[in-house]
Amino acid sequence: MFTVLPVPEARSLLAALLPQELRRSEPVTLLRCLGRRLAQAVYSRENVPGFARSTVDGYAVRAADTFGAGEGAPAYFSVTGEVPMGARAEQGIALGEAMRISTGGMLPPGSNAVLMIEHTEIIGSEGIEAYRPVGPGENVIYADEDARAGDELFPANHLLRPQDIGYLAAVGELELEVFAPLRVGIVSTGDEIIPVEERPTPGLVRDVNSYSLYSQVQQWGGAPVLYGVVRDDPGTLALKLRQAYEETDLVLVSGGSSVGARDHTTENIARMGAPGLVFHGLAVKPGKPTLGGVIGRKPIFGLPGHPAAALIVFDLMVAPLLKFGGYSRIQPDALRVRALVSRSLASAPGREEYFRVRLRRRQGSLWADPVLGKSGLLKPMVEADGLIRAPLESEGIAAGAEVEVVLFGTDYVL
Amino acid sequence: MFTVLPVPEARSLLAALLPQELRRSEPVTLLRCLGRRLAQAVYSRENVPGFARSTVDGYAVRAADTFGAGEGAPAYFSVTGEVPMGARAEQGIALGEAMRISTGGMLPPGSNAVLMIEHTEIIGSEGIEAYRPVGPGENVIYADEDARAGDELFPANHLLRPQDIGYLAAVGELELEVFAPLRVGIVSTGDEIIPVEERPTPGLVRDVNSYSLYSQVQQWGGAPVLYGVVRDDPGTLALKLRQAYEETDLVLVSGGSSVGARDHTTENIARMGAPGLVFHGLAVKPGKPTLGGVIGRKPIFGLPGHPAAALIVFDLMVAPLLKFGGYSRIQPDALRVRALVSRSLASAPGREEYFRVRLRRRQGSLWADPVLGKSGLLKPMVEADGLIRAPLESEGIAAGAEVEVVLFGTDYVL
Repeated sequence: MFTVLPVPEARSLLAALLPQELRRSEPVTLLRCLGRRLAQAVYSRENVPGFARSTVDGYAVRAADTFGAGEGAPAYFSVTGEVPMGARAEQGIALGEAMRISTGGMLPPGSNAVLMIEHTEIIGSEGIEAYRPVGPGENVIYADEDARAGDELFPANHLLRPQDIGYLAAVGELELEVFAPLRVGIVSTGDEIIPVEERPTPGLVRDVNSYSLYSQVQQWGGAPVLYGVVRDDPGTLALKLRQAYEETDLVLVSGGSSVGARDHTTENIARMGAPGLVFHGLAVKPGKPTLGGVIGRKPIFGLPGHPAAALIVFDLMVAPLLKFGGYSRIQPDALRVRALVSRSLASAPGREEYFRVRLRRRQGSLWADPVLGKSGLLKPMVEADGLIRAPLESEGIAAGAEVEVVLFGTDYVL
Repeated sequence: MFTVLPVPEARSLLAALLPQELRRSEPVTLLRCLGRRLAQAVYSRENVPGFARSTVDGYAVRAADTFGAGEGAPAYFSVTGEVPMGARAEQGIALGEAMRISTGGMLPPGSNAVLMIEHTEIIGSEGIEAYRPVGPGENVIYADEDARAGDELFPANHLLRPQDIGYLAAVGELELEVFAPLRVGIVSTGDEIIPVEERPTPGLVRDVNSYSLYSQVQQWGGAPVLYGVVRDDPGTLALKLRQAYEETDLVLVSGGSSVGARDHTTENIARMGAPGLVFHGLAVKPGKPTLGGVIGRKPIFGLPGHPAAALIVFDLMVAPLLKFGGYSRIQPDALRVRALVSRSLASAPGREEYFRVRLRRRQGSLWADPVLGKSGLLKPMVEADGLIRAPLESEGIAAGAEVEVVLFGTDYVL
């Protein structure tokens, strides 16, 4: 009765039953958009800056009037005034004329270049000499050079960074349609699990998974909702799962590790509605005892009780839904770097296997040092910087091989 | 009067005048600690899991009783009961005895290993045969294997990731002393700058810097406070800077690009108090017109008016204060990767120069393709994935050279 699936098959089966895009969109004011993803492409409604601007302090001129100027043969200009900052430049520039202009000032009509102040010298009370020529457009930003009305500024699903927020401010887009965080319900089960506030006596352990899953949901842009610890009682579990299902977009139940608790979770998911349980076991180590199902159009996952396994399976199966709204979209994933494995790792064909590694730069190369430890322990996950993978049909990874490391975070100098 | 300093010197001078640690600490409940940094090392007060646990479903036994067991010569055990989940195992194991145990169950007194259920067969109503030996501790997590009372779990300044939150939950550390975000006041100046809500007429541009700096402060873990746009009037600017100084921990004033606005900012910072202005110009391109000062024990920066230059100088001079609380601490910085530059870039000795690059994988290598464009434009920053640097005394970067790329974000597959 165990339908153990490789990860790609498990994703495909779920994708076929889920909506193309699990996330809704919502309008959000620009200042709150950092780290959010655009739900639709953004087009500029304006030319930016909207007028030709100087990029230096100097003199606005007609470029042609500077041609041939040099140290030995300066070009002379009569200075007819100063361009006001923050206002339209009204006064024009004629043959042999120049106007003082500050960085950011508007080019006066008739001018098409700016002489840098360093390349000029003041002559008398109303003149300057220029010692270098400037070409048309030199030291100038054109009216539509930062953005042109109608241009696509960003595609849908773009992740907004600080410079993007600034760019959208420049074009006056002050409210954006971005994806809303998926609400994720988190339920823990198992008779040996107690709320973290309690002090465990022998036989009992604290509810680690509620905390690490809550944080993973946050990290990947979701909105976590905790439903606490449910004792290994089918009726209570059914009620709690139903509540989480009604109130959120996606449900995670992290398994009691006892056989009984696993069975109750399986039966409960199967009974919640159609299409029901999609797979019962993933060909992944750690992470085999993972359940996946779809009730109506919402996904539900039974994650392993081992915290390290739950963390890894979350990244494989849940994070893409939170980050990209589905499995089918071709998108960048977590941050990855290449490194050399410092010792051989054996793996059994027929399942993907994930190994925790620490990254260290030695002898000019980046090395991935395996952090060994039982899969029931959390400490090796804490000591590691990321994961490497032995593929489904591999027998392991040889020492010295170049591998891709999926990083846990971004606090590294690589 | 221009004291142009290289970045390391500018940092050293500021560091000498600032407190060792600009950030205060605050107690924060564990579920809100994701992405925060510990203000002090954390030591375990408990052994975790606190009792020996099984990592598999099977039978708890004395390992010695399995020695020599094999396919041809199974070892026989009489099964004396089942270990209850979530309770202390009271009943002991004697010579030749076994108890059923689930993953996570407590090892009964006298047992020191667990036979996996797959390696046993049930014989009659009360016995099993084992077809493989197990060593002492096999399929067992010891009482202090995830954490030992007194162990340092994390050093001060550690950035908390999801697995770390889970680990702290496991040891019952539900409130942590973490660094509080630095409050950063942001002031924009310049007669050509208007609030983003307004529609610019020729000569005017929107206040991009308030938006991009606000987002950078958020990205690096600070708490931004906007003080709006101040017209180029020394008295008004003085009042606004004083208000920001009183209300926040660090002040950023992003310069009007006109000469007058720059002068007013300089004079104002110099007049706010001792020690005052520390440098007046950075040997960086883009970013030369940067001011740095210390008033009392708080830093104040005059950032360039060009948005791209302000973004880059922020990362160099402000981000380390927000992230690490100072310049002196040896710490990882932004995420960096190595890549090959796809074309030569010229630079002038005597200043660091930053070039925007896009990352692309071609022919098995990661390439940094320069995104060219005037430094007054924001668009090239938006089109880039990160920055590369020509050092202070370099004349440029040759095509094909391996460089370090400082990434803007984490949305890449490298």
